[in-house]
Amino acid sequence: MRHVDLAITAAFVIPVEPAGVLDGHTVLVDAGRIVAVVPPAVAARDYLPRSRVDLPRHALLPGLVNAHTHAAMSLMRGIADDLHLEEWLRDQIWPREGRFVTPEFVQDGVLLAAHEMLTGGITCCNDMYFYPEAAARAYQAAGMRAVLGLPVLDFPTPYASDGDGYLQAGLAARDAFKHAPRLTWMIAPHAPYTVGDATFGKIVTFARQLDLPIQTHLQETKSELATALAASGESPLARLDRLGATGPGFVAIHAVHLAPGDLDRLAAQGCSVVHCPASNMKLASGIAPVCELAAGGVNLALGTDGAASNNRLDLFGEMRLASLLAKVASGDAASLPAADVLRMATLGGARALSLDERIGSIVAGKEADLIAVDMGELADAPVYDPISHLVHVTSRERVTDVWVGGERIVRERRLTTIDGAALAGRVGLWQQKLAHAPRTDP
Amino acid sequence: MRHVDLAITAAFVIPVEPAGVLDGHTVLVDAGRIVAVVPPAVAARDYLPRSRVDLPRHALLPGLVNAHTHAAMSLMRGIADDLHLEEWLRDQIWPREGRFVTPEFVQDGVLLAAHEMLTGGITCCNDMYFYPEAAARAYQAAGMRAVLGLPVLDFPTPYASDGDGYLQAGLAARDAFKHAPRLTWMIAPHAPYTVGDATFGKIVTFARQLDLPIQTHLQETKSELATALAASGESPLARLDRLGATGPGFVAIHAVHLAPGDLDRLAAQGCSVVHCPASNMKLASGIAPVCELAAGGVNLALGTDGAASNNRLDLFGEMRLASLLAKVASGDAASLPAADVLRMATLGGARALSLDERIGSIVAGKEADLIAVDMGELADAPVYDPISHLVHVTSRERVTDVWVGGERIVRERRLTTIDGAALAGRVGLWQQKLAHAPRTDP
Repeated sequence: MRHVDLAITAAFVIPVEPAGVLDGHTVLVDAGRIVAVVPPAVAARDYLPRSRVDLPRHALLPGLVNAHTHAAMSLMRGIADDLHLEEWLRDQIWPREGRFVTPEFVQDGVLLAAHEMLTGGITCCNDMYFYPEAAARAYQAAGMRAVLGLPVLDFPTPYASDGDGYLQAGLAARDAFKHAPRLTWMIAPHAPYTVGDATFGKIVTFARQLDLPIQTHLQETKSELATALAASGESPLARLDRLGATGPGFVAIHAVHLAPGDLDRLAAQGCSVVHCPASNMKLASGIAPVCELAAGGVNLALGTDGAASNNRLDLFGEMRLASLLAKVASGDAASLPAADVLRMATLGGARALSLDERIGSIVAGKEADLIAVDMGELADAPVYDPISHLVHVTSRERVTDVWVGGERIVRERRLTTIDGAALAGRVGLWQQKLAHAPRTDP
Repeated sequence: MRHVDLAITAAFVIPVEPAGVLDGHTVLVDAGRIVAVVPPAVAARDYLPRSRVDLPRHALLPGLVNAHTHAAMSLMRGIADDLHLEEWLRDQIWPREGRFVTPEFVQDGVLLAAHEMLTGGITCCNDMYFYPEAAARAYQAAGMRAVLGLPVLDFPTPYASDGDGYLQAGLAARDAFKHAPRLTWMIAPHAPYTVGDATFGKIVTFARQLDLPIQTHLQETKSELATALAASGESPLARLDRLGATGPGFVAIHAVHLAPGDLDRLAAQGCSVVHCPASNMKLASGIAPVCELAAGGVNLALGTDGAASNNRLDLFGEMRLASLLAKVASGDAASLPAADVLRMATLGGARALSLDERIGSIVAGKEADLIAVDMGELADAPVYDPISHLVHVTSRERVTDVWVGGERIVRERRLTTIDGAALAGRVGLWQQKLAHAPRTDP
């Protein structure tokens, strides 16, 4: 008999690795890590858990990985919808960012986003925004796993004045939190069209020296690709390849519009693509060639993007939308079946974030990022296939319990790490400031 | 001072007619009808309500109208996903329908669907399925408003043997429930490709004699349109027009693929189109030209279709999807803004079902079909624009209270008319039977 911290027994355990559903299994957790996945009789015979959780009508699955967001933008959720992209950015988002985005804004915005994500079954996100040290503080307080992108731009904002400034500020933030066990870091040049060759050269140097992966918004809109091709004959991806930025660990966010050769380049170099279906639809960016990327062997992850262009940080919704969109775009109802989408939202995301050795599936030795989803609500009944049910039927509101690194962060739908009432008060104050921001601000 | 049954005061009242949001208003209800929409001070001065409901963080809006579903198919929710349409129907759905669909199946399936729809804010649906008298019993028990389509096919099923048989069975069902105040009726030939000219002729005669509108699945797939054009040079819609089936009150369900002239025909004759975005995506049918239809002046409604091809009867999800899909299909992020989608899901649906004199907006004289949506959850915060919030952020799980004809059917998230535990037991029994149905059944 082995002593362990925790035994969770669920009606369905969906480990992702291997694919499929284990009826009525027990997951054993010790010191924050998964020890074993076994039938309850074996658990009773071999383990002495210090605590038990029984989930007789739930599915237990790996925590979902939101592979792209701008978490602090949750404070601007719904501030300006149904607008053209350019008008949305120029008249609504940028003026408010210029005026209001401070470390305090980022910290409160990330707490708001972390509250939404954790209660909705997302245990890890990849966050790209200003003031990552403020974001890091918020994720630590929330107990959430996060990958912090160090933002880089070639133009000044209140956060930094040039490429070097962004890199120095970001690397200082990383140094300050380098021992935080649930935080990791990437370099996040905003996009090929906002970062020039010289700065990309420095990014590549730092990335190699510090073993930091690179992520960037890539070929999100048709005009981004067309402008680059017209100017140089080279796609933005081909340019990043030439500059040495691509390779294993490189994360292309969106990748909606690909030039000939781009798909092969992504596949051959072991890059990942983060698919953000709701954002791409809402901003009318287009439909990413997900089925082709999958067929080509490119690792796929799912992201919500920021709440200002979604407007939910809801990976259950994103899974369903990814499957529906792939079917209608390909004209094939068998495209992107439920198991493939669930893999994108878990192990695919973990791999994109260079975390697949640690999370993304319920496998002995991995850290215990787990979520419980109530499958027994009458409004969702019946349940014929639990994996299909998770993608095509259920919603994030059915998430009842969430563990990050074995710590129970959400207990019976209540997040234990954040004072919701106090946060709601601060969100209300930010809302009052942001709602009336004049459009003519910088 | 006038005595009235009920005064509901909400943080936001969204009447749909007129468009826009009324902050902090009171809706007065008497004898099942809306009496007035006024500021609370006016309500206090002029009315003496026998009961009051205060909703300080809610939006109050018209009950949503699900303009197309096959409610009883909820018992087959998720039984076979991610399959090609033909394989799905031939190997999975039709064999089970042939073996299991009885009045008892329909009654339990409709109760399951009504429970899901009512708790999710849908107060009225348009149901097309076998045994409409069993469906009518279930809607009466649930207290839900429904339009029952009398199904017509030109081939035999256990329900009826030929066109005349379907019509007689359907009209008998209508006679049995003609005094039910929340039920109305339409004739529902399944589709132009399953009902021949002779039967359509009889349908048109009955429709005129009995003042019953006609609805049908129309041009859902590319092949349906192509096959008809190849065979006769005539689109299915043009054929129905020639047969006299179209006109005001005619409801085209899906209308994904239109031939030249079809849009003008729908607009000129005052027909309605029911847009079912999730179903059209899941079955890879295509993207209906919603923006073009709207620009042409065609009345648009929203439908979930059946739970076997969706898999949720969730009109909040459908609203969001309709907006996202219109944006990406048109390449214009300003397409189908939130207020237009909300109108489709309420007044547009009511008009499609020939019920716009009675429901679909919060207007004095209309029946009091109302829903309350909690706008105060931290996971959804902040709320800048309540209408945008309803479409782009909120979910059906935020619906707390539902009135149909002034009767409070859902109270603080609990449906008062259906015994959920007993229904769950019967759904479990149906599931056991349906799960293992052999594919070779009739």
